[in-house]
Amino acid sequence: MDKPQTLKGFRDFLPAEVRKRTYVSNTLKSVFERYGFEPLETPALEYAQVLMGKYGNEADKLLYTFLDRGGRKIGMRYDQTVPLARVVSQGQNTLPLPFKRYQIQPVWRAENTQKGRYREFVQCDMDTVGTDSLLADSEIIACVLEAVQKLGFNNLKLLINDRKNFAGILTAYITVIDKLDKIGRDGVIKELTEKGLSQTEAEELFNTVERKEITHEVKQVLTYLEPQTSKGLLVEYKPTLARGLDYYTGVIFELVAMTSGGLSLGGGGRYDNLIGTFAGKQIPAVGFAFGFDRIVETMSEEGLFPDEIIGTKVLITLFSADEKVIRKALDLSFILRQEGINTDLWVDESAKMEKQLKYADQKNIPYAVIIGPEEVEKNVVMLRNLKTREQKQVSIEALIEEIQN
Amino acid sequence: MDKPQTLKGFRDFLPAEVRKRTYVSNTLKSVFERYGFEPLETPALEYAQVLMGKYGNEADKLLYTFLDRGGRKIGMRYDQTVPLARVVSQGQNTLPLPFKRYQIQPVWRAENTQKGRYREFVQCDMDTVGTDSLLADSEIIACVLEAVQKLGFNNLKLLINDRKNFAGILTAYITVIDKLDKIGRDGVIKELTEKGLSQTEAEELFNTVERKEITHEVKQVLTYLEPQTSKGLLVEYKPTLARGLDYYTGVIFELVAMTSGGLSLGGGGRYDNLIGTFAGKQIPAVGFAFGFDRIVETMSEEGLFPDEIIGTKVLITLFSADEKVIRKALDLSFILRQEGINTDLWVDESAKMEKQLKYADQKNIPYAVIIGPEEVEKNVVMLRNLKTREQKQVSIEALIEEIQN
Repeated sequence: MDKPQTLKGFRDFLPAEVRKRTYVSNTLKSVFERYGFEPLETPALEYAQVLMGKYGNEADKLLYTFLDRGGRKIGMRYDQTVPLARVVSQGQNTLPLPFKRYQIQPVWRAENTQKGRYREFVQCDMDTVGTDSLLADSEIIACVLEAVQKLGFNNLKLLINDRKNFAGILTAYITVIDKLDKIGRDGVIKELTEKGLSQTEAEELFNTVERKEITHEVKQVLTYLEPQTSKGLLVEYKPTLARGLDYYTGVIFELVAMTSGGLSLGGGGRYDNLIGTFAGKQIPAVGFAFGFDRIVETMSEEGLFPDEIIGTKVLITLFSADEKVIRKALDLSFILRQEGINTDLWVDESAKMEKQLKYADQKNIPYAVIIGPEEVEKNVVMLRNLKTREQKQVSIEALIEEIQN
Repeated sequence: MDKPQTLKGFRDFLPAEVRKRTYVSNTLKSVFERYGFEPLETPALEYAQVLMGKYGNEADKLLYTFLDRGGRKIGMRYDQTVPLARVVSQGQNTLPLPFKRYQIQPVWRAENTQKGRYREFVQCDMDTVGTDSLLADSEIIACVLEAVQKLGFNNLKLLINDRKNFAGILTAYITVIDKLDKIGRDGVIKELTEKGLSQTEAEELFNTVERKEITHEVKQVLTYLEPQTSKGLLVEYKPTLARGLDYYTGVIFELVAMTSGGLSLGGGGRYDNLIGTFAGKQIPAVGFAFGFDRIVETMSEEGLFPDEIIGTKVLITLFSADEKVIRKALDLSFILRQEGINTDLWVDESAKMEKQLKYADQKNIPYAVIIGPEEVEKNVVMLRNLKTREQKQVSIEALIEEIQN
């Protein structure tokens, strides 16, 4: 057949990349658990009826839907909020509320692909469902702040506002005002006039929004966050913050990098009407979604990944196909693995040493062990540091100690 | 809309279940890394052409395929071996060989659903690609044995055979012989006669297979495994073991529970012709696939999950909506989380204490903390053990110590 390819907008993740992604998701999970959030997983496929009409007309076009062999119209997971609503509805009599859940799974959207936009990408959501207490809003924010700190970010801030500040203003205008950081004040005014307002009306609208005083709800959340903010974590009231989605009903917030021109790394807020869609009654909720890919990319750029995420610590090479040499290598691999050291054993008895060391280099393995006839004889090994290219004969005990440090 | 449902053969995983599954996959991953295997992830969707014709006609019918909005025929991941072959082919000039990778992702098959068979399930594969050394076969087996030991299984054995023992025997007969453990010797003979052999021929064929001597390859692998088997791990030669799949070419093996009537928990072997399909040349490989769902189910039945997989350690209740009480609860949640304790904070100021304690019970949270006006005054807390239902006033230091033990 032709040269096989991946589909546009879809990615293979090779080991080094998976390790970064796993590091991010494991770090986030540990913080979510610290705050009492629990994991949920839902299927990749749902009845299309569950998904359709929940995200708006434009979004419906981006759903991957098809007929299965049984003639059912089905669709692929598009986000994690609608499946959450379904789970909450189905569990109405059994699921203890509030339900504090996190979910980290891929979703699929038939988007136009462009830089940084994929058709398969991981969403990372945390939500508290079943309470309208502002303690829940503040807990989500506290958790987000701790999570990004734990990932190593130190120049982020969380912008906060109240969707109620936009009461009575047309969605079209809100969307424009939300673009303030991208297009500036003049840009906003200009776009507002393009939407039909006069210059004066546009300026007045913008000024009114910009001067909105902090609401009682935001004030309360900030009070609850004092233990966090007293530790130097930045939360900043921003009356022009709107967050795109229609469904927010209360406090909204966005995590932005202070470098990189205010790049958004995630956002969320209170949405009291969406989760109850299936249950046929109001179920208040508040949540946050991390921009998983963007976090991984930003951490790579800023060098925030620790060295330890390199998996394999040592390669045991094969000096020759001699029985004794192989036995010694096998026994050593057994010992090192028992000691908890991630150990790769070269398996091709006929390969040149040069090839073996090159393999270790390519895989970023920091150490190689060489066991030649002399080492077998003396019951020692040659330990080679692949960065410094220095090597020395050491005992097995010394080998273990050196690698473990 | 109608009451929402999940599709037949698809499952939601609620928190307790996700925690079990995460425990299994994290344990397996740590052992894979210990043996120098590296993680790979491939997309959920592939060009249908990549998938079709790789698994046989019957399997092609089980593929989820459809046309996307661009008119491309695409299909959902059916296994992890064909995507691996594609990745190896695409990476021919850049991927260091041997490529030792593990992959733990969901796959989709439009199977008839029945007990224990799902349309969405997780596969957990490890493979070494690019070498025909028997050291690779033995390393895979050693890794499997260590993995199941680490999961807590102590009554498993690994059956081993060589596919070459079946050279010249029709696939139809091999499939029957492979069922020995399920239907017994007489059952095998009977089914062989139903496939056209006379009674004598059937008995002769079966006896020939059963008396096959251990091959050089199996012998060599067993020698390499001595460090493991000397530790008491059971590897047993079984000449009637065939493993269903056509594509095996050498040593094959299967992991079975000695209880539960020899339930298979995974299997694998050498397959030297499959991976090269896309590359147009032979690329030898050996691998193993764990039955992920079956492992989780068996561990549940045998009580092998440790208690620590319960996430949340303590619920801080809200005694009243009094400002001071809330502040104290918030501050305590901050302190406990800083101490690394997974802490849930009740957020609904108006809920009765009884409801809060019931919530903790339902979620299997072992401790609850109650802070009433008296505790605020004295700067202590009431610590309630939800299993014994005992409670006592303690200082915050004592609280941390008790929960951490």
